[in-house]
Amino acid sequence: MALASLKTNSVTTPAANRFDLSEASLRTLTNAKWNQYGPDVLPAFVAEMDFAVADPIQDAVQAVVAKRDYGYPRRDGGKAGAAVANAFAHRMKERFDWEIDPALVVPVADLVQGTYAPVLAFTDPGDGIILQVPNYPPFRDVIRTTERNLISLPMLDDGTRHICNTEQIIDQIDARTRMFVLCNPHNPTGRVFSRQELLDIGQFCIEHDLIVLSDEIHSDLIYPGRKHIPFASLSPELAARTVTLNSPTKSFNIPGLRCAVLHFGTPELRERFGKRIPQRLLGDPNAIGVDATIAAWTQSQPWLDEVMAHLTATRDHVVKRLESELPEIRFRVPEGTYLAWLDCSALMLNTSAFDFFHDNARVAFSPGENFEPTCKAFVRFNFATSRVIVYQIIDRMVEAVRARKP
Amino acid sequence: MALASLKTNSVTTPAANRFDLSEASLRTLTNAKWNQYGPDVLPAFVAEMDFAVADPIQDAVQAVVAKRDYGYPRRDGGKAGAAVANAFAHRMKERFDWEIDPALVVPVADLVQGTYAPVLAFTDPGDGIILQVPNYPPFRDVIRTTERNLISLPMLDDGTRHICNTEQIIDQIDARTRMFVLCNPHNPTGRVFSRQELLDIGQFCIEHDLIVLSDEIHSDLIYPGRKHIPFASLSPELAARTVTLNSPTKSFNIPGLRCAVLHFGTPELRERFGKRIPQRLLGDPNAIGVDATIAAWTQSQPWLDEVMAHLTATRDHVVKRLESELPEIRFRVPEGTYLAWLDCSALMLNTSAFDFFHDNARVAFSPGENFEPTCKAFVRFNFATSRVIVYQIIDRMVEAVRARKP
Repeated sequence: MALASLKTNSVTTPAANRFDLSEASLRTLTNAKWNQYGPDVLPAFVAEMDFAVADPIQDAVQAVVAKRDYGYPRRDGGKAGAAVANAFAHRMKERFDWEIDPALVVPVADLVQGTYAPVLAFTDPGDGIILQVPNYPPFRDVIRTTERNLISLPMLDDGTRHICNTEQIIDQIDARTRMFVLCNPHNPTGRVFSRQELLDIGQFCIEHDLIVLSDEIHSDLIYPGRKHIPFASLSPELAARTVTLNSPTKSFNIPGLRCAVLHFGTPELRERFGKRIPQRLLGDPNAIGVDATIAAWTQSQPWLDEVMAHLTATRDHVVKRLESELPEIRFRVPEGTYLAWLDCSALMLNTSAFDFFHDNARVAFSPGENFEPTCKAFVRFNFATSRVIVYQIIDRMVEAVRARKP
Repeated sequence: MALASLKTNSVTTPAANRFDLSEASLRTLTNAKWNQYGPDVLPAFVAEMDFAVADPIQDAVQAVVAKRDYGYPRRDGGKAGAAVANAFAHRMKERFDWEIDPALVVPVADLVQGTYAPVLAFTDPGDGIILQVPNYPPFRDVIRTTERNLISLPMLDDGTRHICNTEQIIDQIDARTRMFVLCNPHNPTGRVFSRQELLDIGQFCIEHDLIVLSDEIHSDLIYPGRKHIPFASLSPELAARTVTLNSPTKSFNIPGLRCAVLHFGTPELRERFGKRIPQRLLGDPNAIGVDATIAAWTQSQPWLDEVMAHLTATRDHVVKRLESELPEIRFRVPEGTYLAWLDCSALMLNTSAFDFFHDNARVAFSPGENFEPTCKAFVRFNFATSRVIVYQIIDRMVEAVRARKP
């Protein structure tokens, strides 16, 4: 097998390969990933990839920089934001056969705004918001800090995968329940929901008259055999209650360039949003983020195909090694994302799983409790890095776990 | 005189001079300034400068780009936003001897958010907001579109300069008047308010218990003989009610890179703001905007000194020619900014002044009515361009005005 053979000669993988950058070169970066922890710690936390961005993105950025072209950006004869909206609409059609009106796409300066703004626009303090848990920390933060009522919908392991069965929370729904935050593909479990699962969620949202905030930020990172379905594409009835959040920042690895979009299923929904959250409160994306985004969505699919080939092989390697060498750690094979949600409770650790691996393996995962307070025995493993580093991370995990055994 | 001699040989000014870029090279840019109007129109509208940015800024941008270092930015061992706040505090001390706590500085992803967010945080629909008029259009927009009550404070020409006398509006103040939007240096008139004028405004705001939103975005663009005084530096009592908005985007010519700061005079004020506007709703600045901002504020003053020398000479040239060749156009010599507010009412035009110059001179100014609906006979002239282009703009104005005379 390719990965097996790679294991033995991985150290000789050319550094020039943009998916196999060396630790030494990654440590020259200024990002949080390679600077938040000590120099002997391998980072596997914050959701970015250790891969060099696609050449069309780099070319687009360099074109701006070469001319010091830092004025108010105008693109394609109009405002730069409109060009981003057009590129998004084009990509949704091309990738998912989902036809949308660019006029219903609102570009925002930074992705995390897209998690806060719909919550503030469509709910009031005291209103109930359903969130699949575990989940991306900013969703928990906005619900908690703005005094909404968090209704946790647990992602349960049904023996083969994580599912969210809305019957679990039926008793908690009342007239003040206003929103369902759907994360698909799901972070941190890596689930990619099936059409039937999405239709079930949709039926539930119609029955309880809920607005759906559909975070589809990982929709381009889908493994073979699975398929992403935009929630708002399921039916016009569902589109009319759905705000979709997307961005190239994860899949094309440009989180620092900051650019995202909110899509509203109908003009009425957009108008309702705008009454509470004026568009200019959210700011305009920066010129470089705009051009990087357009280059990502319109020219960088070949790069993403290569990324997915690398990630698929990496995922398979991670699965194989964890299953054979660390059977105490339970997880489900991610169907999308480059994240694995590792349940370490069978290790019976005295500390959080994060602390255990940080202190004993010198590996920094994302702490499970950031995604759900009860999940201290979990970590989220970001495996979007070079094969060498993934091997080292697993070697270190195995060694740390074995060292603590009698 | 230097400028007079330049006029004759200006066409031979080396293109390499970053303050005298040729029209041909400027037309290769992708910005709104050089693309919004036809190829035969000289743009003198949107507030950016036709100057190549400072080398330290360019070096900082290139350092990020060279490594494709587009991850979540971390700077100086902490979040990138904290590094921006520190750079701002350092600059305020250095430039204005104003000591501030970086913990009270909130970086925002885009400047225009800084005009909207304080209005939404400190006022409710129906509340009165005092705005000096004419003024920057987004201030008018946020007050109007969010259903606040606009109390216009006219900037009156007292025969030597524009002043705003709060006695004009005393009858309009009531218990629901909540905010004073101060723009200093003032856009579009170019006034730089004196300490006494600011103290008078401060006294008025204390008497009527108003929050002050002090837009000081042009505070680095001050002509010899004038001095900028940060409003919140006047006294702790005034600081306690003041939100200051600043950014390097105007003075260092990086509007497309988007990065700005809000400073709150006290922790209480910041907390009050945060309760209505969560920081994450405003987003984080992008990595390139962060590094450009820090390079601007900490390393680019020599460049700005050169800019001011160029702008001072340009301003003096504009004043001299308009006074001698177009005495019908009334204006006051700007004390700051690179903007001149031209009163063309004595020309008795049939159309707006904007339309007249656009159609007859092929020059695009900012329409006066964008700054105040009654100001159709005004235009705002952005003269931050090469000497050649400024000469051409004035030549065209003179020709158009003369052509319409009998």
